Amino acid sequence: MDVLEAIFTRRSIRRFENRPVPAEMVEQLLKAAMYAPSARNSQSWHFVVITDRQLLDAVPTFHPYAAMIREAPLAILVCGDEQLEPRTAYWVENCSAATQNILLAAHGLGLGAVWLGIYPNADRVEGMRRLIGNMPAHVIPMALVVIGYPAEQPAQPERYRPERVHYNHWRS
Amino acid sequence: MDVLEAIFTRRSIRRFENRPVPAEMVEQLLKAAMYAPSARNSQSWHFVVITDRQLLDAVPTFHPYAAMIREAPLAILVCGDEQLEPRTAYWVENCSAATQNILLAAHGLGLGAVWLGIYPNADRVEGMRRLIGNMPAHVIPMALVVIGYPAEQPAQPERYRPERVHYNHWRS
Repeated sequence: MDVLEAIFTRRSIRRFENRPVPAEMVEQLLKAAMYAPSARNSQSWHFVVITDRQLLDAVPTFHPYAAMIREAPLAILVCGDEQLEPRTAYWVENCSAATQNILLAAHGLGLGAVWLGIYPNADRVEGMRRLIGNMPAHVIPMALVVIGYPAEQPAQPERYRPERVHYNHWRS
Repeated sequence: MDVLEAIFTRRSIRRFENRPVPAEMVEQLLKAAMYAPSARNSQSWHFVVITDRQLLDAVPTFHPYAAMIREAPLAILVCGDEQLEPRTAYWVENCSAATQNILLAAHGLGLGAVWLGIYPNADRVEGMRRLIGNMPAHVIPMALVVIGYPAEQPAQPERYRPERVHYNHWRS
């Protein structure tokens, strides 16, 4: 799939077929994440691949928008590492670029995915920490990407908004 | 260009040919940005297209890693809007996903680009505000993407790090 087509046709997918994502695809998704740019190439990220049914099903107990995960075979938790980037707080931006790469790679592979926000919501950060266990304090869960074979095809809305574009100077 | 190829072959480009980026390409880049996902679909972003030579050349006066912009015909400033997402601070993640889409779209169009971090560095945020002028307080410059036709072809490093991948539970 062409990269521009992938960008323009990607949608959040919240319905999934009841079949697992092959291990080779999971590795492609993780590789895509790690090819994101990062400030000073710090690569200040970790990824937790979650396929354990009990862990997946527990996410809605602390995340109000995670009901779709009960249908999904896979989630990837994208985490920032403050020790890998001690001087500035660019880890959120690094991890977000990595997360977007996962979403686009999933779409390109014929999978569907949805980005669930974790950080900076304290309840969700704490819920993910409890779920995964033993995560060091300098590692912060930022986004949970729920992934599977799509069982829905959402329509493509128009999202281009010319009023959000400014040229050289600000005009309201 | 295939989306996975685009993800794996994109590199930060810091040398540019001396020719402008066509307006239709600039619009494709902006559209790519606006097709990023955002928390609750808030689309909490603005984009400032900078082509004014004097403005571009002034960026290195407040940004220590922006020297390459003197060669570049174009930059897009990606800004978050706190009023468009008042409840939570997900605007950094939204804008980072949009920025990553710009980088990948540029690569797919045969352009080169580099992401210069602005937020949360206070000096750079203030420098961009002064440069653009009249930006409301609730709009925050987050990233400056410097763009042009590439005049370098950096090598492709291996970036996959298996030690950053964890399965279901944390293991150090």
